[in-house]
This record gives sequence, structure tokens and C-alpha cells, in this order.
Amino acid sequence: MQQAIDSVVVSTRGPGLYEVSSALRNFVSGAGIQTGLVTAFVRHTSCSLLIQENADPDVQTDLDGFFQRLVPEGMDWLVHTTEGPDDMPAHIKAALTQTSIGIPVNQGRPVLGTWQGLYLFEHRRRPHRRELVFHIIGE
Amino acid sequence: MQQAIDSVVVSTRGPGLYEVSSALRNFVSGAGIQTGLVTAFVRHTSCSLLIQENADPDVQTDLDGFFQRLVPEGMDWLVHTTEGPDDMPAHIKAALTQTSIGIPVNQGRPVLGTWQGLYLFEHRRRPHRRELVFHIIGE
Amino acid sequence: MQQAIDSVVVSTRGPGLYEVSSALRNFVSGAGIQTGLVTAFVRHTSCSLLIQENADPDVQTDLDGFFQRLVPEGMDWLVHTTEGPDDMPAHIKAALTQTSIGIPVNQGRPVLGTWQGLYLFEHRRRPHRRELVFHIIGE
Repeated sequence: MQQAIDSVVVSTRGPGLYEVSSALRNFVSGAGIQTGLVTAFVRHTSCSLLIQENADPDVQTDLDGFFQRLVPEGMDWLVHTTEGPDDMPAHIKAALTQTSIGIPVNQGRPVLGTWQGLYLFEHRRRPHRRELVFHIIGE
Repeated sequence: MQQAIDSVVVSTRGPGLYEVSSALRNFVSGAGIQTGLVTAFVRHTSCSLLIQENADPDVQTDLDGFFQRLVPEGMDWLVHTTEGPDDMPAHIKAALTQTSIGIPVNQGRPVLGTWQGLYLFEHRRRPHRRELVFHIIGE
Repeated sequence: MQQAIDSVVVSTRGPGLYEVSSALRNFVSGAGIQTGLVTAFVRHTSCSLLIQENADPDVQTDLDGFFQRLVPEGMDWLVHTTEGPDDMPAHIKAALTQTSIGIPVNQGRPVLGTWQGLYLFEHRRRPHRRELVFHIIGE
């Protein structure tokens, strides 16, 4: 049984989905593990992870559009407002999605379905450098 | 340390929760692993996974009812509409729930609580065949 | 490759976030594993897990405030009402967050970011004793 761990930095330029499927696949193939479990983990609380359709880019637009409407800026009951109007909504959107996703690995590849991509979901407006940690265990 | 990986197909007939706890337990006991981690992963983006109460079926009805109200069909700002009125809402509901769930295994069984069941949460109206991948590692 | 598994009980006194980062770190350091994957799993369906900012406590107040507004008590279409007005909203809030979170371990510590804490998110009003299971695999 073997393991590998590594981190990747994703530069974001405002809200939306940034695909990281290639980085994930490269990490898995670099580890030389045929069967196992790969975990993606994001070390921040105002962005998140999501597995979603990677065929039609409109899906990504609509996903971001839904979360913008569900958790709008300017909710007047918020207490945590010191880091800007988009900060607390970003924390809430991150809470509604995932910080960590585990994906089985088979025949040397993550078992993502045909239309599934792994995305970093940025919730802040300003550019950020986001650190993802990948870990794999298997053989 | 050992591993096992397998997939299971669940046939769905419209929105709602389909319990897969037995399939999970069968997979774990078949692997002969006493202590470890089992991961359930669904290879689609318009259905999802959920651990929820398996005692009163009304809980499942209300869960589906809430998501239908939170993400209704017919939101007029949606761009991705070519796959039918229930497709983009299905992607959003999947984003709000899980694609992957890891469950520790102890004494040869997933450590689900007394009232916890593992469910496939179907978000599309038409019948679908949904593929779940189970992976376990441990000894 | 080694494993460890243990459970921890968290006493809650009403809705809100209860930090369990120390319990997680103690479990990881007690296992003596340098590189691996630690999983936190909660054995209940009316509370959940969340990784969120642990700097400003207002973030936790606002997170709970958002979920209280998104899933209020008294939605008149609910069917499952026998366990009290806060029970079905609690199940829904649990479905919108996580029951299980996997965190890579590096240099003997979970790779939580500077501002990330692991929280038990209680959704019920009455005091509860909540059981968390921690599992780690690695070496």
C-alpha cells in the first residue's frame, strides 16, 4: 500500500467554477496507484469544491447564478461584515457545498463519470490564490 | 491492508430518496475488512448521495419537498434549459448535497447510527439507471 | 500502513457550531501517523459537520442565522412533525451540510488551513449528546 500527498495553487479571478480535473488526474497518474482513494481538500472557507457537469458551460453559469440568488450580498441581519459585503455570503456558500471530496480510483484513474468534472468554486470577488491538497492511498 | 472496489446500479423512477444501505453493508461484509473506510461515490451530476433518517418515510418525503421548493422548475433566469425543465434544478440540488460520502468501518460494519441510512437522491423525473462506486480500504 | 478509530461525545446546548478541532488534532497525534487521511463522521441526522472560519465568532452566528432563515420552523407543508417543530428543519439543515468530512494528514497534522476549524453543527433546540467517529489511515 502506498500514499502520495501534494498541493496545487489555483488562481481565481472572481466568483465561479474553475475546473481542476486535469490537476487531479495528473496527481493520480503521477502517484502510480492503480486502485485506491483520492481526496481533494481546499484549505479555505470562502471557496469550496464541487463535482459538476463539465459539458455545457451554461451549467456552471447557472450554478453560480443560483448561489448568488440564494445567498445575496446585502442581507441586513449579517453581523460579520468587516471583511467586505461578499465575505459572509462566501462563507455561507462554502458551507452549502464541500471543502473535501473523496473519489475512488480504479485502473489508475479517478472514477469520475463521463460528464463529471472537479471544480474549485470561488465565492469572493477579488483575485485569490487558493491552495488545494490532494492525497491518495492505494496500490 | 486490503482494498475492494465495486459498482452497483440503482434504477430510479422519479425524484426522491432510494435507500442503498443494504448494498453498502453487503459490499463491506463481502470485502472481509473489519476496520477501515468505505466510500460511496455516484458517477452523475443530476442525482446525489445523502445520509438521512431511515425510520419515518415522511422524513424522505419532506426532504424531497424542501429541495423541490428551494430549487423549483421554471426559474426564468436559467440559461441551461436544453435538457428539459428539471435538468438544471437537478444539477443545483446535486450541488447542495453530496456526490461522495466516506464512512468509517468498525467490527466489519459501516458505523452508521441507529437511524442513519445511505440514500441515492434522484433529482430527475424520468427513470434513470444510476451507477454508484463503492471502495473500501482497511484490514 | 496503520489505522486508528475512536469516538468522541460532544454535548450540545441548542443550535449552533461547536468546535471539535482540538479533539480531531488529539486523535491524529495520538495515532502517531505522519501522512494519511483522517475522516470525521457524525452518527446522527439532525446535526452535521462543517469546516468553517474559526477566527471571528460572528461568522458562526451568521452561519446559524442563515440556516435558520433558509429552513425556518413552521413550514406548513411539512408532514414529519411528530418529533417537534425543530426536528424536520434539523434533518433538512443536516442534508444541506455534511455528515462526513475527510481531511488529509501531513507531518502528523490535519492540513486544515490557518482559519479553518472543524465544527459540529447542532440543529436541535434541546441538549443532546452527539457521537462523532474519527478514523485515520496512513503511516
